[in-house]
Amino acid sequence: MSDTILVVNCGSSSLKVALFDLNLNQLTSALAERLGKQDAFASVPGYSGDIPLAGEGGHREAFQAIVSTFRDLNLLTSPPVAIGHRVVHGGETFREAALINDDVRRAIEECAGLAPLHNPVNLTGIEATTELFPEAPQVAVFDTAFHQTLPRHAYLYAVPYRFYRDWGVRRYGFHGTSHNFMATEAARLLGKVPGETSIISAHLGNGCSITAIRDGRSVDTSMGLTPLEGLVMGTRSGDIDPGLFDFLKTKEISAEDLHRILNNESGLLGLSEKTNDMRTLSELAEQGHEPSLVAIEVFCFRLARYISAMMASLSELDALVFTGGIGENSAMVRIRTLSHLKLAGFAIEPSLNQQHGKQTNGRIDREDSRFKVMVIPTNEERVIASEALQTSGAIRQR
Amino acid sequence: MSDTILVVNCGSSSLKVALFDLNLNQLTSALAERLGKQDAFASVPGYSGDIPLAGEGGHREAFQAIVSTFRDLNLLTSPPVAIGHRVVHGGETFREAALINDDVRRAIEECAGLAPLHNPVNLTGIEATTELFPEAPQVAVFDTAFHQTLPRHAYLYAVPYRFYRDWGVRRYGFHGTSHNFMATEAARLLGKVPGETSIISAHLGNGCSITAIRDGRSVDTSMGLTPLEGLVMGTRSGDIDPGLFDFLKTKEISAEDLHRILNNESGLLGLSEKTNDMRTLSELAEQGHEPSLVAIEVFCFRLARYISAMMASLSELDALVFTGGIGENSAMVRIRTLSHLKLAGFAIEPSLNQQHGKQTNGRIDREDSRFKVMVIPTNEERVIASEALQTSGAIRQR
Repeated sequence: MSDTILVVNCGSSSLKVALFDLNLNQLTSALAERLGKQDAFASVPGYSGDIPLAGEGGHREAFQAIVSTFRDLNLLTSPPVAIGHRVVHGGETFREAALINDDVRRAIEECAGLAPLHNPVNLTGIEATTELFPEAPQVAVFDTAFHQTLPRHAYLYAVPYRFYRDWGVRRYGFHGTSHNFMATEAARLLGKVPGETSIISAHLGNGCSITAIRDGRSVDTSMGLTPLEGLVMGTRSGDIDPGLFDFLKTKEISAEDLHRILNNESGLLGLSEKTNDMRTLSELAEQGHEPSLVAIEVFCFRLARYISAMMASLSELDALVFTGGIGENSAMVRIRTLSHLKLAGFAIEPSLNQQHGKQTNGRIDREDSRFKVMVIPTNEERVIASEALQTSGAIRQR
Repeated sequence: MSDTILVVNCGSSSLKVALFDLNLNQLTSALAERLGKQDAFASVPGYSGDIPLAGEGGHREAFQAIVSTFRDLNLLTSPPVAIGHRVVHGGETFREAALINDDVRRAIEECAGLAPLHNPVNLTGIEATTELFPEAPQVAVFDTAFHQTLPRHAYLYAVPYRFYRDWGVRRYGFHGTSHNFMATEAARLLGKVPGETSIISAHLGNGCSITAIRDGRSVDTSMGLTPLEGLVMGTRSGDIDPGLFDFLKTKEISAEDLHRILNNESGLLGLSEKTNDMRTLSELAEQGHEPSLVAIEVFCFRLARYISAMMASLSELDALVFTGGIGENSAMVRIRTLSHLKLAGFAIEPSLNQQHGKQTNGRIDREDSRFKVMVIPTNEERVIASEALQTSGAIRQR
């Protein structure tokens, strides 16, 4: 087991490291959490128990511990042929994945103002990887890159233009690798050319976003300058009235409080006052827990509203595609959402929906539906591995 | 000319007073502006020149000056048979217009926290009117009342539920009288019963909002807790990423600054860096002024996105209806907006659009359009007069 691709996904206080073979089969995936805190730890499948990290271990220590465990387990016997890093913000600089060199490092640093919690740790991940594997080609795969094709009417906010000119305030969009993957995979399953395929892709996981993809290119998306805008998410509010900020000042909620509340205490969790987990909410709602039902209703309605809104950016639509933990696994969310979209032209077949389209190449639409509806499972790390392999030229060099 | 209805529309620093006969023909309409400032003035048609208001004249002084001029001009020879007041916020208390008494006054006061710039001046208007016409029945017509039929999945934000429970944070919606009027008028023109008519109504004036009306009832709307949410407007931003607040703190823009910027320096004005006037923008764009074109493009795209989004709340759609200064008069805005909505099923006939549907009972759709498209002129004060007449019972008493 010598030829591998390593994928490094640094969150603000977490780290995921995955290994793939050259056919993009996942060999293993390790996780470190609570980084920077006293009780930071890493866990690696096949290694019994958690690996505690030295006092307040950060991303670097976690990465070193994980790689060392991979080696102990004989999962990594030689340096990877390519390393892929998820980098959150590529600003307007990166329209695709980039082979990392000093210029790219600098550019990622320059975008840090747009993602202060993420880009710096992404750079730490790149440094830690360079130390251990100085010769391996490293690729930065940007959450924002796929959305750089948005037309200006879709990326500009109606705020003073100088905000864009001077500070880059605009819609960037996120989950780009996932949306791109859905488009490519839908085209393949439908027997179409990706560059001639138009879909609406709904990525519904911890974060949720939706994208209109016209002839293979992103033309509108629900996340904006930051990943807070758009759909209702696990703990994030998505869209609110900007006037709420002013109103809450009269209730002595500071801007700092509100930032935390909108990011960590809102969404499904905020409405249900119980949990951000859709499976649990679904069970609670079935048992008659009204607030959980409310949370689900708002989530699905807002999603339907956005699916419909995305049609304004398309002239044809080959399929509506669901992915992510909720998108792939919750037949209930899909059927509730689609129940709002009969006028728009979507109808699904309950039996296919219940099977998550597994016996039908992802298809779950009813015969008389104006548009196709599909479920396409994704694996973010696998998509990053694939982009790393292509961009690094590792295949060509062999 | 003795039987009249008086309409009082108090803005935060302006006052509009209109007179109607019992057939709802407008007899006159006066305006006072810059109220509370040194250069406050009122202007009444038929009275030559502006009427200066005593040093820092407020709403009360302006109202007295206007009524006195109406009397001098023999427009008001006896007390009005009914008086209608536009009141911005009726919270969850008012689902329809209300005959004003002490309870109603108190309830308007209680809603003032939700509209601190508006409800207090609306109450001043009511007091001033009571002083001059103590016997006339007065009716409060609420901007929010028509939207009280919104289902909870449409009115709840995905923020902690206690915000709603404790402080009434929810989508209220505004321009209710205008949207209600469009629905009733569209039904009449289409020969349908209002309670069985479903439309999407776009009110595009200084403020802009859009509403989904299902069987005569509002079921979704773009304005929210405040009139800042939703569509791009003259100087208001409409929707933004809530993360913008955090980002701009790093640029030393305070929450107070941002409130002013989003309300007064954004929208068409902010993007064009020129004007909030759509007619001027249209001329500038034709002359090749790129920023004006950008402002128009963003305005129309965001409107199209919302029109499409409203379909998620309807199971049938009798017509898409435009009204307001821009909605009634800008063929350019309508055609640009509808150009995004071919997939959704809207197509307009350029020649009918150019005539604003005036020869075709408002209709401007093309023969092969899936949905009808209409232009219906509105007059907010006239709608208030009509509601005042009905609610006051002035007709029955005669």
